[in-house]
Amino acid sequence: MITSITIAAALRRNTTLISGVTAFSLGVAGGMAQPTVQASSASTSSTLSDLASRLDAIEADLGISGNGRQYDNFPRLTPKHQSLMAKHLSREIYDTLKDRATASGYTINQAIQTGVDTPHLGVGIVAGDEQSYETFKEIMDPVIEGWHGYKPTDKHHSDMDPSKIKNGVIPDSYVVSTRIRAGRSVRGLALPPGTSRGERREVERVLSKALSNMTGDLRGKYYPLNNMTDQEEQQLIDDHFLFQKPGGGTLLTNAGAARDWPDGRGIFHNDQKSFLVWVNEEDHMRVIAMQQGGNVKEVFDRWCRGVSNVEKVVKAEGREYMFDSHLGFVCTCPSNLGTGLRASVMIKLPELAKNSDRFYDLCSKLGLQARGSKGEHSPPGPGGVYDVSNKARIGYSEVELVQTMIDGIWKLIELEEDLKQGKSIDAKVKAL
Amino acid sequence: MITSITIAAALRRNTTLISGVTAFSLGVAGGMAQPTVQASSASTSSTLSDLASRLDAIEADLGISGNGRQYDNFPRLTPKHQSLMAKHLSREIYDTLKDRATASGYTINQAIQTGVDTPHLGVGIVAGDEQSYETFKEIMDPVIEGWHGYKPTDKHHSDMDPSKIKNGVIPDSYVVSTRIRAGRSVRGLALPPGTSRGERREVERVLSKALSNMTGDLRGKYYPLNNMTDQEEQQLIDDHFLFQKPGGGTLLTNAGAARDWPDGRGIFHNDQKSFLVWVNEEDHMRVIAMQQGGNVKEVFDRWCRGVSNVEKVVKAEGREYMFDSHLGFVCTCPSNLGTGLRASVMIKLPELAKNSDRFYDLCSKLGLQARGSKGEHSPPGPGGVYDVSNKARIGYSEVELVQTMIDGIWKLIELEEDLKQGKSIDAKVKAL
Repeated sequence: MITSITIAAALRRNTTLISGVTAFSLGVAGGMAQPTVQASSASTSSTLSDLASRLDAIEADLGISGNGRQYDNFPRLTPKHQSLMAKHLSREIYDTLKDRATASGYTINQAIQTGVDTPHLGVGIVAGDEQSYETFKEIMDPVIEGWHGYKPTDKHHSDMDPSKIKNGVIPDSYVVSTRIRAGRSVRGLALPPGTSRGERREVERVLSKALSNMTGDLRGKYYPLNNMTDQEEQQLIDDHFLFQKPGGGTLLTNAGAARDWPDGRGIFHNDQKSFLVWVNEEDHMRVIAMQQGGNVKEVFDRWCRGVSNVEKVVKAEGREYMFDSHLGFVCTCPSNLGTGLRASVMIKLPELAKNSDRFYDLCSKLGLQARGSKGEHSPPGPGGVYDVSNKARIGYSEVELVQTMIDGIWKLIELEEDLKQGKSIDAKVKAL
Repeated sequence: MITSITIAAALRRNTTLISGVTAFSLGVAGGMAQPTVQASSASTSSTLSDLASRLDAIEADLGISGNGRQYDNFPRLTPKHQSLMAKHLSREIYDTLKDRATASGYTINQAIQTGVDTPHLGVGIVAGDEQSYETFKEIMDPVIEGWHGYKPTDKHHSDMDPSKIKNGVIPDSYVVSTRIRAGRSVRGLALPPGTSRGERREVERVLSKALSNMTGDLRGKYYPLNNMTDQEEQQLIDDHFLFQKPGGGTLLTNAGAARDWPDGRGIFHNDQKSFLVWVNEEDHMRVIAMQQGGNVKEVFDRWCRGVSNVEKVVKAEGREYMFDSHLGFVCTCPSNLGTGLRASVMIKLPELAKNSDRFYDLCSKLGLQARGSKGEHSPPGPGGVYDVSNKARIGYSEVELVQTMIDGIWKLIELEEDLKQGKSIDAKVKAL
């Protein structure tokens, strides 16, 4: 990708161009001088002021002025800065990226701001638009590889055919509830950290139109955050569906993604409260399907239909989801690239829970990620309940990841049953 | 911003690129040169209109008409938005300003962001650099006039000669303590809401150098926020000298002025703890002189010497304070333009305190602003203590404002003495 500075420099190196640029500058100077002398009306002076400020913008854009570019803007990264961004952002990479901007004007300084201001983050960099991943690839690529183990040359594919899922119904005696979520973004519109008010509202317009068109079991209502009744708000709170304005010191606030709150944000859910969509929170869209019990296939089916039905309207609006054969579905945070899919069950495993280290180790071997009552590696909730999900996000299709989760859960159940019957599971664990 | 993609694509087209860029440049040059030659035969307005439409073409070509500019980005201002910005930002003014930027790249959207996100603010707009006041004058002017009653044609003058102060020593029996503060900014460097890391550090470098050179009673030490011992930090907290990272939902955070905290921020105080400077909090510099008792002249003298001594080093560095014959000393918030000076005393007026409405009314007539224990119009603190300061900030010199405060305080003391002796003050109040 070419930087403004590079181009400005390249332009200056070109003889024909030098004369062109010089003439351009002189032309402006000469042209401006003339009307200034003749200026008498207020509208003339305000037009001139307008022209001057637009020239400032052009100069800033060409990298021939302003915004502290002559100073060293490399961030102060301390030992408290634990993110992959902080680990990989060498001075050399920063200097390579510092004068670049995406077409929507998003810069590396904006991308890393939340990582600089929120030192404990694991990723530490966000995309302001789809192009951010390409424009800032020198830092994005190692962050993506560090998080996902996914190389710049790796390819991603999508498969959202729920009929391929096998053994997708897990007994309710084990599984309390099932939940599948992923993000989607609308191509051509900036992501929340880099968006403008108008683009954010355009995202909301397209998505709320799509959501309002849902039929059958997906039929429901869109609630804009800035225009709901007190009763609706209370109901959404009671259902744990409402998302709140991000507080100070959070990833989203420090990334600039909480600007203009609550403008352009909203929540959709179907009448049965088994399909939920967040609009313009961290991503353009977070799509969540959930229900009680262990019918993973049914939840996946609903999730797929929801995502696809929205897509039809998005396409009818002349738009499409952001998707790339390398990055998969593009989201704000690099950790959600690929499928961005998290398929999880709340599962009761009281016997396995008795050996916590072994349990977490098992999950890891099965391609699963487990969370206890207080996150990863914490003890289970009451009754030996864990939140277990697929671990990978990218490089595997949605079907593959859901199947991995299902297969892993069945294996955990097999081991739990063995333990219940007093059998040793050592051999089976070793064989994994 | 430059459409990297467009230009990259053009670059890949190679020969076409060169001729394309050349044609572009020559086209501009030729086109711009034309009106200069023919200026006498072209009307000013048609020349300007021609310039504007060709700038449109340049911007479109450079891709800087992006960043959601094709959408309506006018903010949603609700009845909760009480600021002067919200009051005066008509759609017409917004549309006039929306494509402008200062030389450092600061935009109207950045300037109003904190007013949009912090509805209760009184001002609701900040400057990202000195030029913001000029570039966005269509909204800045009515905000300034609304806050200060100061018209766009009004002139400001500075006078920092403490020898002109009369009756500057007020009895300690009345005055508990005296405090004078104002802000200063270094010309050519962006203000905290619009600054880059490098500019912020340059402000700190220049100011900490100046402060470290202070001698005599002003001699002291500069403590950078990111590099102080735990002991130093605790001492600064105990002295109430330390400023904290602005929390979420505050003016500064929502204005983008808390980015990169604590980088570039720091505190200076003299050994006697009677002269304090904050670096890169809301302003480049907040200068505060204070001491116990009512020797206002001495406090003002110290404050003036501190500001002037720092200025000498700023000038030796080839820089100067931001000052304008209309705006006075330029600060981040329009409410602090002019002198930005607040000269206050904590004063015990137990008799006057018995009639709170009359007291606040008196202060207003005397050009004073009074605060009780909980801000304006609240009851006094224990013993009838009020915080009383000058009310105006701009249109009067520092000497005039300090003298106004002193004269007003003497008048309040006269009335308090009358009340103590059981005399009616009605006639004197009426005569004000």
